[in-house]
Amino acid sequence: MTDRVAARVPADALRDLCMQILQEAQVAECDARLTADVLVAADLRGVASHGVAHLRRYVDGLRKGTIIARPDEKILSETPVTAAIDAAAGLGPPVSCRAMEMAIQKACALGAGFVTVRNSNHYGIAGYYAMMALPHDCIGLSMTNASSRVVPTFGRDALLGTNPIAVAAPAAAGHPFVLDMATSTVAQGKVEIADQLDRPIPAGWALDPDGLPATDSHRTLHDLKARAGGGLLPLGGEGETYGGHKGYGLAFWVEIFAALLSGSAFGNLTYPLGPGGKALPANVGHFFGAWRVDAFRPAEEFKAAMDELKQLAQSAPRAGGQDRIYIAGEKAFEAHERNLREGIPINATVLADLRSLAGELGIQIDLG
Amino acid sequence: MTDRVAARVPADALRDLCMQILQEAQVAECDARLTADVLVAADLRGVASHGVAHLRRYVDGLRKGTIIARPDEKILSETPVTAAIDAAAGLGPPVSCRAMEMAIQKACALGAGFVTVRNSNHYGIAGYYAMMALPHDCIGLSMTNASSRVVPTFGRDALLGTNPIAVAAPAAAGHPFVLDMATSTVAQGKVEIADQLDRPIPAGWALDPDGLPATDSHRTLHDLKARAGGGLLPLGGEGETYGGHKGYGLAFWVEIFAALLSGSAFGNLTYPLGPGGKALPANVGHFFGAWRVDAFRPAEEFKAAMDELKQLAQSAPRAGGQDRIYIAGEKAFEAHERNLREGIPINATVLADLRSLAGELGIQIDLG
Repeated sequence: MTDRVAARVPADALRDLCMQILQEAQVAECDARLTADVLVAADLRGVASHGVAHLRRYVDGLRKGTIIARPDEKILSETPVTAAIDAAAGLGPPVSCRAMEMAIQKACALGAGFVTVRNSNHYGIAGYYAMMALPHDCIGLSMTNASSRVVPTFGRDALLGTNPIAVAAPAAAGHPFVLDMATSTVAQGKVEIADQLDRPIPAGWALDPDGLPATDSHRTLHDLKARAGGGLLPLGGEGETYGGHKGYGLAFWVEIFAALLSGSAFGNLTYPLGPGGKALPANVGHFFGAWRVDAFRPAEEFKAAMDELKQLAQSAPRAGGQDRIYIAGEKAFEAHERNLREGIPINATVLADLRSLAGELGIQIDLG
Repeated sequence: MTDRVAARVPADALRDLCMQILQEAQVAECDARLTADVLVAADLRGVASHGVAHLRRYVDGLRKGTIIARPDEKILSETPVTAAIDAAAGLGPPVSCRAMEMAIQKACALGAGFVTVRNSNHYGIAGYYAMMALPHDCIGLSMTNASSRVVPTFGRDALLGTNPIAVAAPAAAGHPFVLDMATSTVAQGKVEIADQLDRPIPAGWALDPDGLPATDSHRTLHDLKARAGGGLLPLGGEGETYGGHKGYGLAFWVEIFAALLSGSAFGNLTYPLGPGGKALPANVGHFFGAWRVDAFRPAEEFKAAMDELKQLAQSAPRAGGQDRIYIAGEKAFEAHERNLREGIPINATVLADLRSLAGELGIQIDLG
C-alpha cells in the first residue's frame, strides 16, 4: 500500500494543531510550543518520519504516564562551560531546546559550551538543535541515543540506537552546512517506506534474527518493532569490508556522549519493557555542544572559506548520469522552502491519526 | 609482490633510530622525540601505513624545505577554553602533541578545551592525540584534513582527504574506547596492501577517473597518487543507497573543523603542486579537543558505565561464523601488546628505506 500524500497543510496550522493537542494532554504552553516547532521543523525539512507522525507516540506516552507532561526538570550541575540536566521523564524537545540554548550562551561567553541531558525521551530531529547555533555564528553539535535498533559489527541482535549526529556550521551566502545523520546505513524510516510501498530492502541495510542479510521490508520492520532479533546495520554495512565497524564505532561514540556522559540508560535498556512487554518510562540521553567560530578565527573569514569549500564541491566534476553534487543539508533546505510555500505534505495514515487525536481530545480541526 | 615481514624490531630501537634520523635532518631533539613516538605508536598499534614507513616522506620534505625543521611555531590566539596555533610549516606530530596538551589542560581547568592548528603537515595517526586525554580522565577528540583522495557523493574527482576522526574515552577495566577512523570506506593503506598482494579491490572502495567502480588496485593506487581523477569513496560507498552521503558529510565536517576553523588550506589545495607537478609546502589543518568527564558526571560512575556498555557489546549474540564482537580500538591494543613483546614487524620495503635513510645520513643501524 502506497501511503500517498493526502493533504498539504500550512506549517502554521500544523504547529497550532500540535500545540493544542499537546496542551490538551496537559503539557505547559511553552513546552507545547517548543515541541510543536521541533516536530513541524522535521516535516518542513522533508523528514516526515520525525515530524508530526510522532505526535501519537508522544500523546500516548503522556496519557500512560511514561512521559511526564510537567516534569520536575533540574540542572544537576553547571560550570561556565558545561552543564548536566535531568529531564525528569518529560518530552524530549523542550528540555533539548533549553539545553542547546545553554550550550550556545556558554559558547558566546567563553568560546565553547556543552550540556548533557539524562532521563529524557525522543527529541525529534537532531539537526534542529545543531541549527540553533547558526544565528550566533556558532557551530552546533547534537547527539542522542535511541531505542536499540542497530547490530554491532559481527553481532546479530540490535544493541545501539540509530544514534544520530548533527553538526551545523554557518556560511556567508546560501545555505549553511547541516549534517544530520543516523549512524546506521539507513534510519528505520527507510524500512517503513519500503514496507508501505511493498518493496524489498537492499541487502546491506539490515540483518534478520539469524544474522543473515534481510531483504523483506515487512518482516524486518516487524522484527525491529517487536525486538525479535536482527537489526539495522551500522553505516558501512555488514562486517568490516566496507567499513561497517566504523559506523558501529560512530554509534558507540554517540552512546558514550549522549548516554554515558549524561548518566542515562544505554544499550538495549534505553526503552525498557516491563512484564508482558509493557512499555516502561524511557531514559534517553542527549549531548549538545556549541563552538563560537571567532574564538578560533574571525567569523567573516570562516564563512567566506565555507562558501569557497561549498563552491569547490558543488562545481566538482560529476559521475556519469549525475546532475548535481550536494552539500549536507541542502536537500532539506530546498524541501523546507517548498513546504513553506506549498504546505507540508501529510500522508493518509498521519492525517487520520491527527484527526483521531484531535477528536479524542475534543479539538476542532480543518486540515483539508 | 607480497611485502613480507623482514624483521621484528624492538619499539625502543625503532624510536631511537627515528630520533637519530630526524635530528640528522636538523629537527630539534624534543620535536624529533615526539615525532618518533607518534610514528612508532602507529606501528605498535598495527597501523604500519602511518608508522615509520612515513619517515622517508618526512625527511624528503625536510630536505626539500617543504617541511621546516625548526619552525617559528606561534600561538595566534588563546582563551581559557580555546587556542589557535600556526605550525609554521613544521612537522605535524610535535605541534599536534603540544596542541592536544593545551586542550587537555584547558579541559582539566574548565571542563573542555579546543585547539586548532594551521599551516601544518601530516600528523600520523589521529588516535595518538585523542588517547593523550585518557590518563586525565578526559575524553579526547582529534581530526585532520589531508591530501585530497575522496570523491564527494555523485562526483568523480577526489576533493576531500580521508579526513580521520579519532575519539578516545576512558574505561575502568580493560581497554578504553578508541575510535580512529578515516571517513572514507577504506584508507589508502588498504589499496596499497591490495596493490602489494597483486589483488583486486572490491567495487565500493573507489571510483576510476570516469566515475565508475574501480577494482584494479594497481591502477587505482597510481591514479590516487598521480591525482589522475577518481578517488576513494566516502564511508557508505557510492551514491546514497548505503549512506555514502553520510561518509561524505563526515569528511566535510572534518574539513570544516580541521581546515576552515584553523584557517588552513582546504579541499584539493591542502597539498598544492607547483609547475611541473613539483610539491609545494603543504598547509594541513588539525582540530583537537578534550572534555573532562567529571565536568558532567563523576568519572568513576562514567567509567563503570563504560565497562558495562563494553560488556553488553562483547557478550551480545554473534552472527554466524563470527567468534567475537569488538570494541573500537581493541584490535589495536592487542597488536600493541604483541608488538611490544615480539618487536614491531617491519616489511622489506620499509626496512630497505630505513637502511638507506640511515646510510645517507651516516647513521649506524642494526635492525636485524
